[in-house]
Amino acid sequence: MSVAVYRLVIAYDGTDWAGWQRQPGAETVQGTVESALAEVLGERVAVVGAGRTDAGVHASGQAAHVRWRSGFPLSGLVHGTNSHLPPSVRVMQASSMVPEFHARKSARAKQYRYRLRREPVISPLHGRYCVALRGEVDLEALGGAASAVVGRHDFTAFARSGGAHGQPWRRIDEAEWTSSGPQLEFRIVGEGFLRGMVRGLVGTMLEVGRGRRTLEQFEDLLRGRPRTEAGPNAPARGLTLERVDYEESWFASESFPL
Amino acid sequence: MSVAVYRLVIAYDGTDWAGWQRQPGAETVQGTVESALAEVLGERVAVVGAGRTDAGVHASGQAAHVRWRSGFPLSGLVHGTNSHLPPSVRVMQASSMVPEFHARKSARAKQYRYRLRREPVISPLHGRYCVALRGEVDLEALGGAASAVVGRHDFTAFARSGGAHGQPWRRIDEAEWTSSGPQLEFRIVGEGFLRGMVRGLVGTMLEVGRGRRTLEQFEDLLRGRPRTEAGPNAPARGLTLERVDYEESWFASESFPL
Repeated sequence: MSVAVYRLVIAYDGTDWAGWQRQPGAETVQGTVESALAEVLGERVAVVGAGRTDAGVHASGQAAHVRWRSGFPLSGLVHGTNSHLPPSVRVMQASSMVPEFHARKSARAKQYRYRLRREPVISPLHGRYCVALRGEVDLEALGGAASAVVGRHDFTAFARSGGAHGQPWRRIDEAEWTSSGPQLEFRIVGEGFLRGMVRGLVGTMLEVGRGRRTLEQFEDLLRGRPRTEAGPNAPARGLTLERVDYEESWFASESFPL
Repeated sequence: MSVAVYRLVIAYDGTDWAGWQRQPGAETVQGTVESALAEVLGERVAVVGAGRTDAGVHASGQAAHVRWRSGFPLSGLVHGTNSHLPPSVRVMQASSMVPEFHARKSARAKQYRYRLRREPVISPLHGRYCVALRGEVDLEALGGAASAVVGRHDFTAFARSGGAHGQPWRRIDEAEWTSSGPQLEFRIVGEGFLRGMVRGLVGTMLEVGRGRRTLEQFEDLLRGRPRTEAGPNAPARGLTLERVDYEESWFASESFPL
């Protein structure tokens, strides 16, 4: 039996999940996708994610890989798995990849988005995915902080305490704040992220936007300052992992659906 | 003690609710708002809605009125009530109204929106509020059907069977389909709606859009044809009550929040 590697694009509403990563005794997205896929394949196989997301964080485009026999119908991986998943998790797409593909190691970049709303009361129709922003923020100051994030930095100050194993340098390609009506969004694209990094950046940039921290102080944090010097993590529900990018050369076939 | 009438604007994610209207043994939005308000006022008072919404239907701007002593702080009606509500229901705004105000009888118009997505798999981040649209639809045909809905018609064909008490004529002021990327939306504004009317209209217009029913046949339904001749109700979760409009003259004060 020849073996192939499949990439799954997975979306989830993280509200009621204990994060992506399988843990004993917790309801996780990874464990749930593995159970659903086992119903389709007749056997439990590991679903290896491009990265973990914390409890309450959403994804519209998490990526994961699965090793299984070659030639398995991509439509079955999508619709078959979805028929065994709860409505808060969906396989959006499946692709056949070259054998060396690895969802985490092959990732070129990831995009995250953080959503806030400047409203006295947040509607329940937004409240699962957006966080209330109280008081005034200076959009120009936020933009300055976002520009400072772009480039290669030591992000120790923004990594979850105790979670920064390995080297803390990461390359950020794009980072911007945009505002539309009451909605305020931060979008960031980078080669990789430390645990808790986006939420730590958002929480600390908001302090810059409120004038509680200068841009210079913020820039200093990007030089490997300790976690205790940065601001608090912004709440999980505002954050969505939108995309994991791979080079075209990893793909062995067209994706389903296209 | 002088008595006043307050209008509340209420938003809810209808997914897990048995609709707006209080019913014995069911979790309804009306009953839940009354319980939360009782914690604030120290006494249970009726919360009279502008209209009922079915189980699973959402609202970003349902309206309701409450009779209570005059001079009660509007901020307390909003934040106090919200502190006793589950996250899926929120009081968005409170206003003092003139004594004759009645949320249903004084309403000038309501706006509903129905959301569909033309995607093979709907992301869980959209799936609570949007319905998957399978196959091709002709946007021009949908637009023709929407135009036919505008005006004064006998909507018996689109009322929930057994639910059309009273006269079945309603005036529709605006009706339009709009398309943006994968998203397809129907927006309708009218003086009032029969039970199930928007979902019946959407389900039947989609048959026109798919070429299964001609525009002429659709127009004929607007002349009081029986319910059995129209198409199926579109699913509840695609529908949101967005706005209930009142003349300025009903308002006795500025609203909180503005």
